[in-house]
Amino acid sequence: MRRTVIGVMGPGSELPEQLARDAYDLGKLIARQNWVLLTGGRRAGVMDAASRGAAEAGGVVLGILPDDDDRALSPHVTIAIRTGMGSARNNINVLSSDVVVACGLGTGTASEVCLALKAGKQVVLLGIPNQDYEFFGRLGGDKVFGAATPAAAESAILQFLAKN
Amino acid sequence: MRRTVIGVMGPGSELPEQLARDAYDLGKLIARQNWVLLTGGRRAGVMDAASRGAAEAGGVVLGILPDDDDRALSPHVTIAIRTGMGSARNNINVLSSDVVVACGLGTGTASEVCLALKAGKQVVLLGIPNQDYEFFGRLGGDKVFGAATPAAAESAILQFLAKN
Amino acid sequence: MRRTVIGVMGPGSELPEQLARDAYDLGKLIARQNWVLLTGGRRAGVMDAASRGAAEAGGVVLGILPDDDDRALSPHVTIAIRTGMGSARNNINVLSSDVVVACGLGTGTASEVCLALKAGKQVVLLGIPNQDYEFFGRLGGDKVFGAATPAAAESAILQFLAKN
Amino acid sequence: MRRTVIGVMGPGSELPEQLARDAYDLGKLIARQNWVLLTGGRRAGVMDAASRGAAEAGGVVLGILPDDDDRALSPHVTIAIRTGMGSARNNINVLSSDVVVACGLGTGTASEVCLALKAGKQVVLLGIPNQDYEFFGRLGGDKVFGAATPAAAESAILQFLAKN
Repeated sequence: MRRTVIGVMGPGSELPEQLARDAYDLGKLIARQNWVLLTGGRRAGVMDAASRGAAEAGGVVLGILPDDDDRALSPHVTIAIRTGMGSARNNINVLSSDVVVACGLGTGTASEVCLALKAGKQVVLLGIPNQDYEFFGRLGGDKVFGAATPAAAESAILQFLAKN
Repeated sequence: MRRTVIGVMGPGSELPEQLARDAYDLGKLIARQNWVLLTGGRRAGVMDAASRGAAEAGGVVLGILPDDDDRALSPHVTIAIRTGMGSARNNINVLSSDVVVACGLGTGTASEVCLALKAGKQVVLLGIPNQDYEFFGRLGGDKVFGAATPAAAESAILQFLAKN
Repeated sequence: MRRTVIGVMGPGSELPEQLARDAYDLGKLIARQNWVLLTGGRRAGVMDAASRGAAEAGGVVLGILPDDDDRALSPHVTIAIRTGMGSARNNINVLSSDVVVACGLGTGTASEVCLALKAGKQVVLLGIPNQDYEFFGRLGGDKVFGAATPAAAESAILQFLAKN
Repeated sequence: MRRTVIGVMGPGSELPEQLARDAYDLGKLIARQNWVLLTGGRRAGVMDAASRGAAEAGGVVLGILPDDDDRALSPHVTIAIRTGMGSARNNINVLSSDVVVACGLGTGTASEVCLALKAGKQVVLLGIPNQDYEFFGRLGGDKVFGAATPAAAESAILQFLAKN
């Protein structure tokens, strides 16, 4: 009865075109699997693109906001959690995700990958340069998987879920 | 597109029969209105009873757990948020609810009513003794409404939502 | 080697003269006992008055700020903790205090008294109307003590500390 | 009147001898500068070693515990903050530090470096392999400084403080 939750983390900044498309496609694939998409909830960057993909496919989009108001909320979020606790909410994002996908990399996203590994979560890195992938590999060993495409990320998620 | 979220707070202890029935009925009424039910997520007391009511009516039940594991999780929760932050999560419960209903009273629930009033939320008190209701009335003025039955609580929620 | 921490909670609003004096005197008494004063850190109301009393007596004043910047910080705080998590920090205030004193009452302070009782802490209520004191007595039983003066609060703290 | 706070983060695991000595020496240097030492508070690894160094030099040691009890607390902590919020407290550690020093690297420490950079803090990396330093350099640019010894870390802290 309880639904699988996949967290998609990524920069809240202006995105390169490829990354925006990947985030959108990944959101769509997640919704089609009938998984709940969890994001940081903001109307920006990867959060917004993945949420749009999932919402257009009819999925549930859970937005875990750092704020306590809705001005920054993505319009594609279907259920908003207002934490009012800034970046401390990053730990909630990863604890609440069955698998964490990082789509691009900034300081916030990198903190979420580290916190996910700290919590023993499986992490998929999508579209992350090889030298950064190696850093996380040193930290997380086989908990970390590098995916070149949204479809490869989806396959990795399926394998991780099957193991638990 | 974003869904209305109604928070139902209440003791996690063994419940008197009337309170258990009220919590269950309230959960059912919330789901029938197509609102998302938010609770503290635990397999205990009001949280569990309201979740069961909503789940049996086919609703979405969002459980905001104080823990970071699922041992204490109500089986009627459909989406689990693991905060891992103990009672500090009470503030997330109220910030994320469009209206907060307190169903019975303990120290945790009373803290949630106070935090809800601090955040300017509308609060419905269901099945709370008159002298305790008066305390919250002094704190919250017309933000606080006392309801004798789940149906009266539902009416109050509808009125509060219509005002915003 | 570890120091005793006494939390003083109270409204951040403009204070009646008596309450301002009580908060100031209480801060002074706490510092003279060589206890660390913990407050919500803001340059307002009871937090600021108690901090000033303790600082003038040469004490350590720990300010647990809801914000992540220092614009709202009381100038009498000697060590600032920036939580950036709004009212969710109220739970940190009470968990970190060996005894909690509420000096006056608003929604935030009332939430702290409830959270303190939830955590099993001893609570002293200073300058709180009788009907409000009775509410907390129903919630907390003999964990709650009503004090009419700062000196009576100090005595109650000494007794609570002696029990642990 | 408000005191400078230097956060020292590092693994809570068994430490290599050099790292344990560095953490101890760094704690001592911090206390001698009359800065408050902030750590994660636990009786383990870098937290404990740095706290011992600072306490032996007569310093104030602020321990920001992930737990809400004192069983895991380092005996060298002079003021304990019990957050009860697990790794979400990592963000409080960095927001409350004027400069953050990472002494060794694990998943928790790496998350703190990322969160510090997210919050715009200056970060000193002590005893961190070159390839890991390069990762943080890509994330944080000139906010990140690599130090080979505790004395070099102290110099970097002095320079960072002088800039603000």
